[in-house]
Amino acid sequence: MTTQVIVLNGGSSSGKSGIVRCLQEVLPEPWLAFGVDSLIEAMPGAGTGIEFAADGGVSVGEEFMTLEAAWATGIAAMVHAGARVIVDDVFLGGAATQERWRKVLDGLDVLWVGVRCEAAVAAGREIVRGDRVRGMAERQAEPVHRGVDYDLEVDTTHTEALECARAIARSVINGRWSAVSGSR
Amino acid sequence: MTTQVIVLNGGSSSGKSGIVRCLQEVLPEPWLAFGVDSLIEAMPGAGTGIEFAADGGVSVGEEFMTLEAAWATGIAAMVHAGARVIVDDVFLGGAATQERWRKVLDGLDVLWVGVRCEAAVAAGREIVRGDRVRGMAERQAEPVHRGVDYDLEVDTTHTEALECARAIARSVINGRWSAVSGSR
Amino acid sequence: MTTQVIVLNGGSSSGKSGIVRCLQEVLPEPWLAFGVDSLIEAMPGAGTGIEFAADGGVSVGEEFMTLEAAWATGIAAMVHAGARVIVDDVFLGGAATQERWRKVLDGLDVLWVGVRCEAAVAAGREIVRGDRVRGMAERQAEPVHRGVDYDLEVDTTHTEALECARAIARSVINGRWSAVSGSR
Amino acid sequence: MTTQVIVLNGGSSSGKSGIVRCLQEVLPEPWLAFGVDSLIEAMPGAGTGIEFAADGGVSVGEEFMTLEAAWATGIAAMVHAGARVIVDDVFLGGAATQERWRKVLDGLDVLWVGVRCEAAVAAGREIVRGDRVRGMAERQAEPVHRGVDYDLEVDTTHTEALECARAIARSVINGRWSAVSGSR
Repeated sequence: MTTQVIVLNGGSSSGKSGIVRCLQEVLPEPWLAFGVDSLIEAMPGAGTGIEFAADGGVSVGEEFMTLEAAWATGIAAMVHAGARVIVDDVFLGGAATQERWRKVLDGLDVLWVGVRCEAAVAAGREIVRGDRVRGMAERQAEPVHRGVDYDLEVDTTHTEALECARAIARSVINGRWSAVSGSR
Repeated sequence: MTTQVIVLNGGSSSGKSGIVRCLQEVLPEPWLAFGVDSLIEAMPGAGTGIEFAADGGVSVGEEFMTLEAAWATGIAAMVHAGARVIVDDVFLGGAATQERWRKVLDGLDVLWVGVRCEAAVAAGREIVRGDRVRGMAERQAEPVHRGVDYDLEVDTTHTEALECARAIARSVINGRWSAVSGSR
Repeated sequence: MTTQVIVLNGGSSSGKSGIVRCLQEVLPEPWLAFGVDSLIEAMPGAGTGIEFAADGGVSVGEEFMTLEAAWATGIAAMVHAGARVIVDDVFLGGAATQERWRKVLDGLDVLWVGVRCEAAVAAGREIVRGDRVRGMAERQAEPVHRGVDYDLEVDTTHTEALECARAIARSVINGRWSAVSGSR
Repeated sequence: MTTQVIVLNGGSSSGKSGIVRCLQEVLPEPWLAFGVDSLIEAMPGAGTGIEFAADGGVSVGEEFMTLEAAWATGIAAMVHAGARVIVDDVFLGGAATQERWRKVLDGLDVLWVGVRCEAAVAAGREIVRGDRVRGMAERQAEPVHRGVDYDLEVDTTHTEALECARAIARSVINGRWSAVSGSR
């Protein structure tokens, strides 16, 4: 089997989008990249039914969940129609979020990738970016991985995005099982 | 019937994205917005299989068409899954492009909107934006509308984006037929 | 005498930065462009000593005024050192703001340009942009021009940015007096 | 004496602007930040008299040098007028570029900071950014430091931007001499 979807999960400022850009560069075929950021950008204003508290807390309401579910269905349909897709998401619900993606992506070959970054380092990078509500990085660093199963995990704390992307690309090219055995 | 998809077609710098932002603002329900720009952004680098010549010419190859077709299928699936979607596109192939969208959106209630802008004015706005290859606006202004059927046409040459959006929103709220009768 | 500085004054969303980009394009010599937006960008975070209220009100404190004064002095020095500079500003203090600029730019040949836009139209364009606090455009449209003397005024309500820029460029090329006589 | 200007010099993608944002955050007083990127942005189009070759080479002509000199004079004037300023630059001419800055900043208390990053790592980050001509990072990594004297050097290869900024801030707060003795 051949990987059709790469799902990256990690907290805010863990380095997902940098890895995505590198993945698109190093993978031999063209992959489309979508993520929670591009979903929010597609929504009216600053996002529908999502609120960013001053302390970095993020809460999503029913309206957001409904649009997100329809969007995820669309992503799955793109893959069924032949596109290779990289999704980067923040599993605010941990295992429950993964379960929702599993259902949507049912029948597709998915590579699940955890993107970790030490909370303190992610918080520092949040300052470097300068365009995020402070506190998100630290708050999300651990909970988003709770109970989530991965084929592969990368950690950007001490590893460059390009190197992480190369590890993921090897798993894609060599198949998911190499990733699993390599990471255990 | 209720409009589920709004498709805006117009040349580069005709004012589509401004209208989209206003539409999202004035429409009572949340609408997701996708377009050829967000598709290109989802592709590796500066787009896969698409080339922007120095004179403003745009040529798309097979790779682009394949990814675009899968993406369009995904958009349709989002709508079938319950999302309202605004698509803004540049029908480089005129009527043929519309025909492709028609097939993909089959069974959905679509409002087709032509966004016109006098070539010279669009060319001026291309300079104002400062982030587009010069010449696209003028080259695309006419051909993208060739043979295309609309429910509604707006012209940004002398009408503000917000006003255009309000006209489109009225058609959405009152139903497609009002638009048709209103514009004929 | 030859114009060394062009100062554009107008409310938020009146179209100043579009005119600036066009001016840089149509003027035969290279002109540097600076403005209140680039000053705020040079400050820490979202600006020092400046507050944007939810209703579109903008209040600037002493810290902002101090940095702004030093910055304006620097702009003047660039011009004395030989650079041609376009400044775009929002004269929150109307005539008093112009007086401060007059002192800073003393000894230089300045073309004062008022950029007007009907409040309702500017408010619509604020929605189109989607990146500004709502209400600024309408609140600033009139007061920023109170008591200010111009060599030339342009109005973007019904005139494209490029056309406005061409009118300004003609004044620069033909000399300030042509502008004055042309506009009176 | 108190540091009035911090000059950061380093190759493209060495991490200067991240350090600048952090410096503005951690320094107790407000500092304005200007750099070669903001200068180019102030120029017409994609910069006047500067060319970016496809292989990452950058060549600057007389027109660029003239505008840059006037701009640097303006920066110095801002500092003389009371603003604290962080400048980030790429010393394409190495020691000769520093000499030009020395003359312009004569009489001011300057902290000279070298921002280093291993060429291969900088090249990787260039891919991560995705908005720079490839090859600049690698080409500039070494030459920009040739013959340049620093009060302090930081290396982003294995150190986070925030940590680098804190080291620089300590030198600013404790005085330049602590930096010199600390780094030797």
